[in-house]
Amino acid sequence: MEQRITVIGLGLMGGSLARALRPHLAYLAGVDRDKETLEKALAAGVIDAGTCHLPHNLTPHDFLIFATPVRTILQLLAELPTHCPDGCWVMDLGSTKQTICAAMEQLPASFAAIGGHPICGKEKAGFSASDADLFWQKSFVLTPTSRTTTALWQMAKQIVQWIGGKLVEMPAQLHDQLLAATSHLPYLVSATLMQTVAELAQTEPQTWQMSGSGLRDTTRLAGSDPTMILDILLTNHQAILPHLAAYQQILGQLVTLLTQNDSQALAEWLLQAQKGRLSYEQTLFSPPKQIGRGDS
Amino acid sequence: MEQRITVIGLGLMGGSLARALRPHLAYLAGVDRDKETLEKALAAGVIDAGTCHLPHNLTPHDFLIFATPVRTILQLLAELPTHCPDGCWVMDLGSTKQTICAAMEQLPASFAAIGGHPICGKEKAGFSASDADLFWQKSFVLTPTSRTTTALWQMAKQIVQWIGGKLVEMPAQLHDQLLAATSHLPYLVSATLMQTVAELAQTEPQTWQMSGSGLRDTTRLAGSDPTMILDILLTNHQAILPHLAAYQQILGQLVTLLTQNDSQALAEWLLQAQKGRLSYEQTLFSPPKQIGRGDS
Repeated sequence: MEQRITVIGLGLMGGSLARALRPHLAYLAGVDRDKETLEKALAAGVIDAGTCHLPHNLTPHDFLIFATPVRTILQLLAELPTHCPDGCWVMDLGSTKQTICAAMEQLPASFAAIGGHPICGKEKAGFSASDADLFWQKSFVLTPTSRTTTALWQMAKQIVQWIGGKLVEMPAQLHDQLLAATSHLPYLVSATLMQTVAELAQTEPQTWQMSGSGLRDTTRLAGSDPTMILDILLTNHQAILPHLAAYQQILGQLVTLLTQNDSQALAEWLLQAQKGRLSYEQTLFSPPKQIGRGDS
Repeated sequence: MEQRITVIGLGLMGGSLARALRPHLAYLAGVDRDKETLEKALAAGVIDAGTCHLPHNLTPHDFLIFATPVRTILQLLAELPTHCPDGCWVMDLGSTKQTICAAMEQLPASFAAIGGHPICGKEKAGFSASDADLFWQKSFVLTPTSRTTTALWQMAKQIVQWIGGKLVEMPAQLHDQLLAATSHLPYLVSATLMQTVAELAQTEPQTWQMSGSGLRDTTRLAGSDPTMILDILLTNHQAILPHLAAYQQILGQLVTLLTQNDSQALAEWLLQAQKGRLSYEQTLFSPPKQIGRGDS
């Protein structure tokens, strides 16, 4: 008998996953605490059945994919053994992986569990922002745990393939360290900028009128869902703080050069930034390599 | 006899202006130190004549529009009286306005001069990135000087209208203060982030693979032309430094909250940023009002 997939949390990530999986599954269930979201997902034919809470009749044939904010995933994983005494399959799409994978390792041996994180997103949250193409050609990290069985690994790989993701296998710790720099730091930088300019706008009404695509793009992340971000910060602050310190140091150097109006050193500082962007851009337009367990 | 327009500097801004003005003018000249750029602009029919240096036979019928980096504009303005002893009309598209308008005020009384700055751009420089639609529905600041005649003001307004810009009249000092926050600070924030992540990428080769649209958009400005940015920093550092200090303070608060893992205060900090973005977004999708000399 096949595993029966249930996506828990039908927001941007879970809703997009359900939409992308839909053509590949005869049956797909959804869980969301918001009734309206369930109704929308049912009406759109994205799920076949929906409930507001984790079903009580879970069996080893159930494959639960958690797509809620990180701390909700941790809470649900802790409750899972009482809902499902015989175990089941578990995967997640949480933005940080160490705390979640540690919680997965604590599940009884009857559970099979693997961490997942698609490297994509939008600053808009909710089912209405969900999109079947969200994962297309984007990196999808799988972080195996001691609870990852061969059958679950194969199924997780199958899911990544179905939704068009680029599989990257990576330990949870490295994932959290890298994402702290490539995702969490950009958010914090963007949110700090947004607060700084918004404060000015309160006394200078023409501020927004004087802004172009630069401010628009650089502050886009500041619009992200605070609940999702809070959970990321609380579960990954130890990886984020060193990157923030490095950022503050480079910013401090800039302030010194600017205060001294040091033309030559400023020119070098600017070139360094442009050089970084150019080397990053080279990777933006060449899709990441498939990295798997030597079998992909 | 009509004014004969010459655009000086056929990069992104000047090239775009020439393209946008082209349908409205019987004759349009261009100046660029790069011969290949001149040949491209001539071949594309964007200009009727091109030279590598300011023409020597300038007359009061010439209308020069400077579209080079700020310090080059300052240098050319200083040389102008020897090129054109009888005066002419002058406008510019420079990113900072105080030093340029001050230099315009120093021109002999036979010159008519006005500062200009279209609030738009791309992180790509050069004629090949130029686009006739660059100014469409974007704010275009005009900063009148004591050298601004009524005839020049009318012509400058006409140009803004032809290229589809939204006219905003503003004193040079306020322009520079607001742009320091809405344009120069975002660039510096973006460039600092780019340097921080690029440094990590040198030791962690999977860094770029772990990046999504968030890092891409937040570091877009870091790819800007260093020459243009250097001139902005050197001519506007006094307006930029207070905004940088405000930014550093908000970032410092964040580091404290994150170090303390203060869940409630972090949640409020995140909400504040999202609130700022939402109020900014409301203005993004309603075009700025026309603000002129009571006649527009």
